[in-house]
Amino acid sequence: MSGAFKNCQTVLVTGANRGLGLQIVKSLASGDFSPGKIIATARNPDAAEELRHLAEKHPNIHVIKLDVVSQASIDHAAAEVGKLVQEEGLNCLINNAGINVVANFETVTAEKMLENFHANSVAPLMITKAMLPLLKQAAAKGRGMGIHRAAVINMTSLLGSVELNWGERANNFKWYPYRTSKSALNMVTRCMAVDLEADGILCMAIHPGWVRTDMGGPNAPLSTDESISSVLSVIGGLTEKDHGSFLHYTGEPLPW
Amino acid sequence: MSGAFKNCQTVLVTGANRGLGLQIVKSLASGDFSPGKIIATARNPDAAEELRHLAEKHPNIHVIKLDVVSQASIDHAAAEVGKLVQEEGLNCLINNAGINVVANFETVTAEKMLENFHANSVAPLMITKAMLPLLKQAAAKGRGMGIHRAAVINMTSLLGSVELNWGERANNFKWYPYRTSKSALNMVTRCMAVDLEADGILCMAIHPGWVRTDMGGPNAPLSTDESISSVLSVIGGLTEKDHGSFLHYTGEPLPW
Repeated sequence: MSGAFKNCQTVLVTGANRGLGLQIVKSLASGDFSPGKIIATARNPDAAEELRHLAEKHPNIHVIKLDVVSQASIDHAAAEVGKLVQEEGLNCLINNAGINVVANFETVTAEKMLENFHANSVAPLMITKAMLPLLKQAAAKGRGMGIHRAAVINMTSLLGSVELNWGERANNFKWYPYRTSKSALNMVTRCMAVDLEADGILCMAIHPGWVRTDMGGPNAPLSTDESISSVLSVIGGLTEKDHGSFLHYTGEPLPW
Repeated sequence: MSGAFKNCQTVLVTGANRGLGLQIVKSLASGDFSPGKIIATARNPDAAEELRHLAEKHPNIHVIKLDVVSQASIDHAAAEVGKLVQEEGLNCLINNAGINVVANFETVTAEKMLENFHANSVAPLMITKAMLPLLKQAAAKGRGMGIHRAAVINMTSLLGSVELNWGERANNFKWYPYRTSKSALNMVTRCMAVDLEADGILCMAIHPGWVRTDMGGPNAPLSTDESISSVLSVIGGLTEKDHGSFLHYTGEPLPW
């Protein structure tokens, strides 16, 4: 992915304290062409030791506190980001933060469904709304579509594909709250793509693969580095034709 | 649709106080072959005048109180339904109750998203869970799949299709909470289809068309009678091949 983000000045990644979010920050900071400002959010920065150490080594990493399910926290973070990026605006918002409230048909409750939906589907929408003035500011300076101008990237999952939730695949992960939240996020992505198009802001959803993180578990086939180097290449290469799309980390389109 | 439900002994319809739910009860009660027991639920039966008058004329209509977003109310209703159907069990559960919390990108809030998701996506799941013993009881006596045995029908919407939310169609109804809740309901439908298959319980989602109801408004092309006569014909003819499907009220498959 070396160089994939060379035309991107400012990028924000939510849920950067661990897993894929932390790896995105690591990979972006250590690339040949690192964005001028990498804004990494975490619910509790004090507990995000690895992220803080990374930020000490790389002065272009800025850690900001953000609890994605709190509107007050979102508004506060948006103001902080505004102060950081100033007239540059925000080129790339990566809504990566997500949770998996594991529950099958027997164990699922309304509370579990609502909790996962709030964190995985509603939060990316509310964060994008809050960052919209900054995205517009960046978009106003560019042409075409892509992270050189302004883009909203939602980290979704293949498990959010309703079509693929059938046959053998369906029997592996009977996670009602997680699957539902990711289908909902896909719809949010598509709605936002329709609304942000006039401002030249690209919006799409990407599946990072099944990765060895706390969420993916030790049996997943991909390391965080393998997943994210591919994900960042795909994001770096997005153009108009990818607006409103749902892509695999390898770049292939997935069915909704 | 006359006769479409002739092999169905017991049917339950949620949100039967008005609109499509009321029309389903009306059409089923007045058909040549009316199901032995039509259980109609409403949040507030005392205020559901038209439904109560209908029940006075048709002794096979049973009105039960159900607030779909209250687990206590769901549990209470399931116990009432159990007493009504006894060893017959429940052949057909129609999760029809739904709301439209209208909001576009500018006006949407987390609360609006959660409210619509709870009523339209979570409630059908929790109601199906509560009715499962009764659906299983009915399914144990039959063969094949369909409403002669046991079926869960979720009233969804074409607006829940992520694929169709693009181009000209997308610009008409920029309803974030509603669209998202219906995509989520489609995923819930598909998850339940996978889990209920072993018990021989059919599960699918149907789009009733754009109908002149309080929700659809006065400019919709279909009357409730036109929509529901077609919907009931489709439901009456469901077989194995429709398990896990998303159908238009005309019976054609829709993309997720």
